[in-house]
Amino acid sequence: MALIVQKYGGTSVGDVERIQRVAQRVATTRRQGHDVVVVVSAMSGETNRLTALAQEISPRPDPRELDVLLSTGEQVTIALLAMALQAQGQPARSFTGAQVRILTDAAHTKARIQAIDQAPIREQLTQGRVVVVAGFQGVDENGNITTLGRGGSDTTAVALAAALGADECQIYTDVDGVYTTDPRVEPKARRLDSVTYEEMLEMASLGAKVLQIRSVEFASKYNVPLRVLSSFEDGPGTLITSEDQVMEKPLISGIAFNRDEAKLTVMGVPDQPGVASRILGPIGQANIEVDMIIQNVGADGTTDFTFTVHRNDYPRALEVLRGVAESLGAREISGDDRIVKVSLVGVGMRSHAGIAGRMFDALAKEGINIRMISTSEIKISVVVDEKYLELAVRTLHEAFELEKAPAQLT
Amino acid sequence: MALIVQKYGGTSVGDVERIQRVAQRVATTRRQGHDVVVVVSAMSGETNRLTALAQEISPRPDPRELDVLLSTGEQVTIALLAMALQAQGQPARSFTGAQVRILTDAAHTKARIQAIDQAPIREQLTQGRVVVVAGFQGVDENGNITTLGRGGSDTTAVALAAALGADECQIYTDVDGVYTTDPRVEPKARRLDSVTYEEMLEMASLGAKVLQIRSVEFASKYNVPLRVLSSFEDGPGTLITSEDQVMEKPLISGIAFNRDEAKLTVMGVPDQPGVASRILGPIGQANIEVDMIIQNVGADGTTDFTFTVHRNDYPRALEVLRGVAESLGAREISGDDRIVKVSLVGVGMRSHAGIAGRMFDALAKEGINIRMISTSEIKISVVVDEKYLELAVRTLHEAFELEKAPAQLT
Repeated sequence: MALIVQKYGGTSVGDVERIQRVAQRVATTRRQGHDVVVVVSAMSGETNRLTALAQEISPRPDPRELDVLLSTGEQVTIALLAMALQAQGQPARSFTGAQVRILTDAAHTKARIQAIDQAPIREQLTQGRVVVVAGFQGVDENGNITTLGRGGSDTTAVALAAALGADECQIYTDVDGVYTTDPRVEPKARRLDSVTYEEMLEMASLGAKVLQIRSVEFASKYNVPLRVLSSFEDGPGTLITSEDQVMEKPLISGIAFNRDEAKLTVMGVPDQPGVASRILGPIGQANIEVDMIIQNVGADGTTDFTFTVHRNDYPRALEVLRGVAESLGAREISGDDRIVKVSLVGVGMRSHAGIAGRMFDALAKEGINIRMISTSEIKISVVVDEKYLELAVRTLHEAFELEKAPAQLT
Repeated sequence: MALIVQKYGGTSVGDVERIQRVAQRVATTRRQGHDVVVVVSAMSGETNRLTALAQEISPRPDPRELDVLLSTGEQVTIALLAMALQAQGQPARSFTGAQVRILTDAAHTKARIQAIDQAPIREQLTQGRVVVVAGFQGVDENGNITTLGRGGSDTTAVALAAALGADECQIYTDVDGVYTTDPRVEPKARRLDSVTYEEMLEMASLGAKVLQIRSVEFASKYNVPLRVLSSFEDGPGTLITSEDQVMEKPLISGIAFNRDEAKLTVMGVPDQPGVASRILGPIGQANIEVDMIIQNVGADGTTDFTFTVHRNDYPRALEVLRGVAESLGAREISGDDRIVKVSLVGVGMRSHAGIAGRMFDALAKEGINIRMISTSEIKISVVVDEKYLELAVRTLHEAFELEKAPAQLT
């Protein structure tokens, strides 16, 4: 008998029929002898509906009142799910964030969880009830309702699992697990049985939208086994856990990619100390986030400075750079918003040399020109022209044999 | 500078534009130098929408979860109204029932208020904020969300006014006050400047639907001056207060009527002790409420027993009586569901004889046959055939000169 936290997102509880299907799934888990705590989001569309009402009243509504408003979305779902469980003969009780006492800081609309009171939930579990908790919301120490920001229900689930010492935190979503890459790009993409927190974090930050980065960080920090599953079909999903818990350790776990990239280059800047900050300072002041950064020193004592930004920020970044070009003594400002980033992710890289070489070889054989390279301990990213995205992903998927069951590390 | 509690019902906050209009009205009161606490209902239609969702899941949803669900309706309104006030430059803060701490008993869907914590509201008022409170809801001592039942927002407003010692509790609604009778029946009906709690209670229980009976009882018990006003047009409305505060004391304040009546008669029952309980016992067991009761003793030692019930209960009441007729020794069971009740209400009756005579005279002159009569200290009710309703109301309205400014008692 285990303690399992299950989280169902907005699509999984989008209408009464789906809520009833979730209730069935929960009741089945309960009948298997497990204690179950369920975390739910607002019914899909509801948060948008409420946000629109607020926007009608004020373009910048008070964050405290916005939280009071938005938190009703999950409150509706917990009541309906508790009713649906009871209708199926499974005793259940709903809790708002304030009722559990999910204590957060006072940063309305983006609050962070500080503590969770276990006692009320334990008491209900002891009485054989399923506990249904509103995701995404908490309460500050003055009793004000707070929300954790969009996607915060995942964080609620992981935080509850950590606080309760749950055996597993199951995130039900509209995909049946984490894949070696996006199956829409590479049909041979394979569902991973397991993946490490670190790999999942890299993949999430590289654009794989299965899980919120924050919830994976949280799970990693508290060592909560996370499992991504489909709420619409049965299956084992993908277990996300610590490296020592993952039985199979493939060289490469997956290929992530990000289409929303653009790069900017400042050419012919005098190679002096402080040049990077003189370029990136104005960019930061314009509230533009920078991803990859590369600086090359030329033969003539000048340097070329290249960085990437989100594609939406590209026009503004270009404008900012042109405004400071003269004071930088730059020869030229250039840019390209038709680029993408493709990344190999795998903890196996740590102990295996030559991965980068194999990656660059494979791309070169297909004539794909690499525009930028960036590496971390468990990731190698390359920037290539947008038109090569699908080809690059498929090439790498094949080169590292990701369609096959994982190659065992020896 | 006064402390005023204002309550706006579902129609008054039915959409964003109306919420903004309410905000204007509240801000105006605040600018006049008054402290303002606003109580709001769910936006019209919202409670029905939520109830329908619950019904889809279960024909008899768990009352605790139903309260969790329904209480979101008012929570949405308080957030939107607080935003609207802020957008107009008026600082404001919303409170759910739990946040105020409106402590109730644990009778879900029909809870009763036990205590209200003043401190959080006072603190906000001191800081110059308008306080916006969710009506209809509270919290029990275990932190469960409760609701006061339909129309409970009026009760919340009056209870808050009592707890805070407010100078006035203003109930904004879709009519501009309490009238001498329903203007749809008698176009000469006149808005009353003031009326006593007792009269209002009689009128409400007789079908005048301006205010919930419970909120008037509450106001009377704690001597809270109540004012009924229109949220759509300006005007003084009607003040409902204690008898010693009402300056003008007319003989008759108004004429109430009730169309939902039916009468049943058990004829020729032996006139023995206990006959009333032998008739009304089975009716009560069938959960049918009885209103007026009349018993006449005939010359032959038998008695005729007549009572009225809600028209919806008529067929079932008739069935019950027929089932016990033989054991009662009754000669005949008869009934009529085409009757109505018309009532004169006025505290002036207490000190003035002859009112009943004037009433019966006026009706007789129009050929209206009185089928039953019932009186209380400040009310005389007659049952007449349904077809006479409008004529009876207009006849009495004229006979007692209710269209004119009140006749002063000397």
